[in-house]
Formats: sequence, structure tokens, C-alpha cells
Amino acid sequence: MIGVFDSGVGGLTVLQALRRRLPRRDFLYVGDTGRAPYGRKPAEMVTGFACEIADYLYGRGVEAIVVACNTASAVALPELENRCKIPVWGVVDAGVEAATRMTRTGYVGVIATRATIASAAYQRRLEAHGLRVWARECPMLVHLVEEGLAGSEEAEVLARHYLSGRPKIDTLILGCTHYPLLRAPLQRAAGDGVHLVDSASVTAVRVAAAMADEGNGHVTYYATGDTKAFAHTARMMGEAGHSVHAIDLGEAA
Amino acid sequence: MIGVFDSGVGGLTVLQALRRRLPRRDFLYVGDTGRAPYGRKPAEMVTGFACEIADYLYGRGVEAIVVACNTASAVALPELENRCKIPVWGVVDAGVEAATRMTRTGYVGVIATRATIASAAYQRRLEAHGLRVWARECPMLVHLVEEGLAGSEEAEVLARHYLSGRPKIDTLILGCTHYPLLRAPLQRAAGDGVHLVDSASVTAVRVAAAMADEGNGHVTYYATGDTKAFAHTARMMGEAGHSVHAIDLGEAA
Repeated sequence: MIGVFDSGVGGLTVLQALRRRLPRRDFLYVGDTGRAPYGRKPAEMVTGFACEIADYLYGRGVEAIVVACNTASAVALPELENRCKIPVWGVVDAGVEAATRMTRTGYVGVIATRATIASAAYQRRLEAHGLRVWARECPMLVHLVEEGLAGSEEAEVLARHYLSGRPKIDTLILGCTHYPLLRAPLQRAAGDGVHLVDSASVTAVRVAAAMADEGNGHVTYYATGDTKAFAHTARMMGEAGHSVHAIDLGEAA
Repeated sequence: MIGVFDSGVGGLTVLQALRRRLPRRDFLYVGDTGRAPYGRKPAEMVTGFACEIADYLYGRGVEAIVVACNTASAVALPELENRCKIPVWGVVDAGVEAATRMTRTGYVGVIATRATIASAAYQRRLEAHGLRVWARECPMLVHLVEEGLAGSEEAEVLARHYLSGRPKIDTLILGCTHYPLLRAPLQRAAGDGVHLVDSASVTAVRVAAAMADEGNGHVTYYATGDTKAFAHTARMMGEAGHSVHAIDLGEAA
């Protein structure tokens, strides 16, 4: 069993990519919808939430944990790696690796939540590879997806707004698990010359290389907020109607 | 004691207006952050949530309930009035009354969440007063406020987007308790000739006319989602650091 968690439903894009690579694996997905979004919260608060979820997943017997949330990966990964006795993957390193491989000009952009950009997790890693980096926080993009507005006029308006004034990058990292669902408006706003990097699929490749594909192909979903609301948002993101179970973290712990 | 509830923190604008009018009253505020936002959820789901909260408030002994959420007021008020043995105020009627009084041309606009617009609660009432109505759903505006972006470029971009293509209205109802916090960008986008109606203050006038101002001036805050996250969002909306208590509705009921 592999544990996967996100602040909400955005990590379902990572889960989908993982299941394509490891169809027989069992997964336990936790969406921390009761405390989402993480993107505007202080780093210590997000780290505390991530540790509680990791402890829960470890207690349920998972063999590895995928932090399917860029904000939590950016701010909490070292703490999670220290704390957990099992492998922990974040999504940041995968995105950095792919962008480093893809860029020709060495000028790379990253768009993400406020907390992810403020952590400088992407910028530091990319610069360590000798790349120039343009970074922009895009706090409204996650809401487009959660509102089911990925195909709307609002998505075009906000994609253009956030990518306006960018320098001549040739690669753009989608530094939030929700953004792959905005690929079309972001590609239109960025222009054909910019390659978009989606860390969900890159992360799945790395996890699949390290874990055998064995199990019963079961997925169990948990939400810290209302389960009906989680199922509803997941449907709006194109996930079939799974049953979702409630868990209580944090206040009760 | 008066019970006040909202899907989250937006109703705090109504609570603030109520406390200015009834400073000695005790208030019990419930923010249903564990299931927010309501604006994109089906009407039956929102009605179910509102009934659970009303039952909880009634059980706590409140003398009246203010539904400080336009979405819940628009879709659930008749059901709440039937169910409750105490007075129940919504915010829709107050906004309609003020707009009817203010308009000179008889052409009124209303902006609100998707669920509020879809319910046609404003449109039907305004048309019953013989007014022409322009209505637009603005699903992204609530997120601007909850992200602390009311003063941002994104607020200007989205206010212009949502008010583009409007007809020659002279009055615009802010049909969501979050929107008063976006008054400046909305006024700039609408132009000086358009009068903005804020239902929070109008509702407070109506409630204060019916209820005596007596009590200890205490306010107790409850959240169905994470209490630290609620306190954090409330601070971003300019509320001082109150202590917030957890309650469990719905799943447990």
C-alpha cells in the first residue's frame, strides 16, 4: 500500500498518474480538505498538518508516502524524511529534474502557490543546476480548478494575467498539482515556444521505478473535511464517484 | 443570544454590522468551513447543511438566527423558516429592499455566487417590484477575499472581467457576504454612476429594529473545519484573534 496525500483534491492528478504506472498497487489517499488550501498558510502550520497525515498513513501500514502537494513538498519534505522510517517522495524534485533536462536556453519559469514560491524550494534547486529562474505566485489558479472553471473565460483571463511580464523562458514548471488541469489556457497564455512541465507524471515515473507493482489495485479515499463535499469536488475534477471516508486529524490528535 | 452562520468567514461582515447596531447582544457565530464554499454546491446539499446548523444553534438556545450567507439565504430560507420556532433572517430580502429604494432608472444588477444566481432568489424578488434585472455569477470573487487579495491586481482584473458587458444599471447588489470587502475594485469597475448595495449593513438595520440590545456583548466562534485555519482566515479579513471552537456537524449527526 502506498500513501498519497494533498491539501485537497489536486493530488488526485498525481494519484491518477501513479495508478497508470502501478495499476496493481493499493493506494490510500488523504485529502486534507478540512484545512485546505495550504497555499496561503504559514510554513510551520503546513509542516504540522503534513506530519499528522504522515503519522496517520504510517500507522495504517503504508510502505511509502507520496506528498502529492507542491506546498507541502516545498516546505515539509526534510521534516517528513527525518520523521518517517519509509520512503517519502515529494513532487518538487521531479519537476526540477524534468525542467533541467528539457530547457535549451537555461531560462526556466515556475508558477505555484504563494507558500511554494515563498519557500524558494524550486528556485534554489533550479539555480543549483546553473539555471536562471523566473518565479510567480498564482494564488487564484487552484480555485479555478476547484470551482470547475478550468475551461472558462476566467481561466483565460487569469492565465494571461499571471504570465504577463514574464521574461523569455523556454520551460515552465506547473508547480502545483492542480495546474495540469489548466494546461490548455496556460499553454495559450505562454505561447507554443514554452514547454510546460507537469510534475504529476514525472513523480509517477520516479515512484514506479522504485516500487514493485503488486497488490489488488484498491484505492481508499479519506477526507478531513466533509466527505460529500470532497466527492463532489472530485467529480468536478473528472474523478468517478468513489466512496470517501471521514478522518479526524489535528484537533483530535 | 443571536445565532449567526455562514459557509465560512464571509458572514463576519454581517456579524460586524450586527455588533455595531447591537453592541450588548451576545452572538454565537458558526462558520461551516469544513464544507465551504457553498456557492458551487447543489441547493439540496446547502439546504441540508443550513438545517443542521440551525438545529445546532436552536439547541444552544439562541433567540433568533441570521443566515449571514447569501447562498444559504437564497436556497434554504423557506425550509429554515418552516423548521425553526424562532425568527430567521436572511440577507436577500434586505438587499432587495435597499436596491428597490435606491434605484432611479429601475435597472438593477446583482452579482453573487453561482448557487445564488441559479436560485433566481434576487431576480424573482426584484422583478416582483417591477425592476429590470441584470444578474451575473462571479464564482472567483469569494476566493479573492479568502486569499487576502482584496487589494490586489487580481481583484482589479476579475472585477473588470465580471462587470464587463453589463447594461446601464444604476444600482448593483453585492449578493455575497464577502463582496463588501471588494467594494473599492468593484466600484472602480462599475464606475461612479453605479450605487453599490451591501446587504450586511442593511440586514443589521432590520435585525436591530426587531431585537432589544441586551446581554454581555460576548461573541463565541465555532468552525466545522480546522479552527486554526478559521482564525487565520479571519485575521486576513481584519478580524482580531478570537478563540475559535471546533464543532462537528453532519457526519456525526
